[in-house]
Amino acid sequence: MLSPLIRQTIAAITPADMNAIHNMQHKLDGLLKPSGSLGRLEQLAMQLAGISATTELNYKQKAILVFAADHGVFNEGVAITPQNVTAIQAENMTKGLTGVCALAQVSGSQVIVTDVGINADPIPETHQYKIRRGTANIAHGPAMTHEQAVKAIEVGIVTAQRTIDHGIQLIGVGEIGIANTTAAAAIISVLCQKEAELIVGLGANLPIDKRQHKVNVVNTAIQINQAVPENPIDVLAKLGGLELGAMCGAMLAAAALKIPVVLDGFLSYAAALLACRLCPQIDAYLIPSHFSAEQGAKIALDALGLRPYLDMEMRLGEGSGAALLFPIIDAACAMGQYMGKLTDSNIVLPNA
Amino acid sequence: MLSPLIRQTIAAITPADMNAIHNMQHKLDGLLKPSGSLGRLEQLAMQLAGISATTELNYKQKAILVFAADHGVFNEGVAITPQNVTAIQAENMTKGLTGVCALAQVSGSQVIVTDVGINADPIPETHQYKIRRGTANIAHGPAMTHEQAVKAIEVGIVTAQRTIDHGIQLIGVGEIGIANTTAAAAIISVLCQKEAELIVGLGANLPIDKRQHKVNVVNTAIQINQAVPENPIDVLAKLGGLELGAMCGAMLAAAALKIPVVLDGFLSYAAALLACRLCPQIDAYLIPSHFSAEQGAKIALDALGLRPYLDMEMRLGEGSGAALLFPIIDAACAMGQYMGKLTDSNIVLPNA
Repeated sequence: MLSPLIRQTIAAITPADMNAIHNMQHKLDGLLKPSGSLGRLEQLAMQLAGISATTELNYKQKAILVFAADHGVFNEGVAITPQNVTAIQAENMTKGLTGVCALAQVSGSQVIVTDVGINADPIPETHQYKIRRGTANIAHGPAMTHEQAVKAIEVGIVTAQRTIDHGIQLIGVGEIGIANTTAAAAIISVLCQKEAELIVGLGANLPIDKRQHKVNVVNTAIQINQAVPENPIDVLAKLGGLELGAMCGAMLAAAALKIPVVLDGFLSYAAALLACRLCPQIDAYLIPSHFSAEQGAKIALDALGLRPYLDMEMRLGEGSGAALLFPIIDAACAMGQYMGKLTDSNIVLPNA
Repeated sequence: MLSPLIRQTIAAITPADMNAIHNMQHKLDGLLKPSGSLGRLEQLAMQLAGISATTELNYKQKAILVFAADHGVFNEGVAITPQNVTAIQAENMTKGLTGVCALAQVSGSQVIVTDVGINADPIPETHQYKIRRGTANIAHGPAMTHEQAVKAIEVGIVTAQRTIDHGIQLIGVGEIGIANTTAAAAIISVLCQKEAELIVGLGANLPIDKRQHKVNVVNTAIQINQAVPENPIDVLAKLGGLELGAMCGAMLAAAALKIPVVLDGFLSYAAALLACRLCPQIDAYLIPSHFSAEQGAKIALDALGLRPYLDMEMRLGEGSGAALLFPIIDAACAMGQYMGKLTDSNIVLPNA
């Protein structure tokens, strides 16, 4: 059921380099500070060392890969934003005008937009991999065929591979897709085996009195489609999100090429859960950023075993949270780049 | 009891500019995103607008003010780091080798070190305002005289004023002072009227089996000194921390000059509590950074009404957490600098 490209990509994902992690810990313990006192920043540096197989951390070239697609379930009235905003914002991405573009400026990162299924004609300056013009309505049937789900993951793989071939050393994932929190909630509900009631949130300012309707739509989609939780391609095909499949693929490709992947919020959690079902070893390569304000965030993060670094109550998507974490990644690298060593000082510290 | 300089500084602290906050909210709501979807980053931008009285946010020139001093209570065996590390690390600050220096590199910020009471001869390249060679042992009596407490606050005021005169637009506060978590725990315990048992943590890797001793020392210091909680100068003089007084003063001066002040961890919480007792209006100017891993952090943060943005389990001090927040401040500014406007787009969004 998996294509050769997906199978090869998964096969290339190896465990993190334990030697580099150990060496990084040793390096950090030798810096001018009490052992472990930089807390999770040190743990992040160790994770990065394990991914990049070096203690000389440096990720100058960073990019956010934004995947854009539309959702047939929009027709159920689960979002108040007009559907054409997916296309408009994809174009605004190419002009540097969106939230993620602004935040990416802070760390000098690129934003790369890929159309994997916008319900509109191709937009100049976006990478064109349109699989179909939006998914079908999951409240009535499957979002897409299995072949299209495989293709969506492949788009993410190819996009990440090409980006990394061009010298990008650190990837963040993002998305645009009006109504996609409905699809993500359905996927998370099925994969985590939790009630939709606990997962469904307000997305982009859905009025609170319409949330129950959104819960009902997710429940209907789950009931009608009967996706097999053990089969992530089936879950993706039936509950959808062309862009969610592409994000999943980008994670797989980055991990296969030993490039750290920074998650964004709720949508990226759904994609990461799919990726983890396809390849549990990918967890070593996934770096959480912010704690999404969307209702089901904690359930998804717990299932992923991830604890975000940023508490911002953000719910924009686009990769904005990933972009916000990039300077923290730079900080994790800066410890080893700039701090002095205990052995070069007159400090005699007892061991922790 | 307050000196003319402190009194004038406090008198100059005015409420935040409500008009700028309102205008900033309006500006943010007009950007290319669902209203409020950038969450606490938007709230941070509004706070900054209120402080700087403008919606054109930009803090290119940033500095961490690090105040260094020693503590007589070191002699009670409440720290395992040798006392001379205060002096050694103050010197390493001037060479760019410490943790805060490394993290400040990420946002291109300066680190400015002031000796307000290191128990050593003056160190080249540090700003010299040594009031005394460390405090007296608070387990035996007051840390310093009331005059010295006033002077410590004045050192912070003068240092911040001079830094701001030189063009710095955003300040973070930090410290070095072996054994200073003991003094800070005593101050927080008295000001928050909570048991020392709930506040005292392990500082820089104190072995867990020595924590009860540290609690006992804090309790002894509180019992012997009988500081008056309603009188912050008395609390500072009796329970000490020349560098804590200076941090408090720096906060007051920054607020008086309408410059945002980014807190660091546990030590900065103690200093901020002193500043809030001297001038409750200062809270509009204080920006939390990370959630310190020190035990009493939550009690102090709750008393300050602050919720940090970063969850890093850091406990280095030095201003390292403040430095780590600086790029997030840049991100809060970047929204208004780079994002496009809804009115320039074809997007018709319903109101939230």
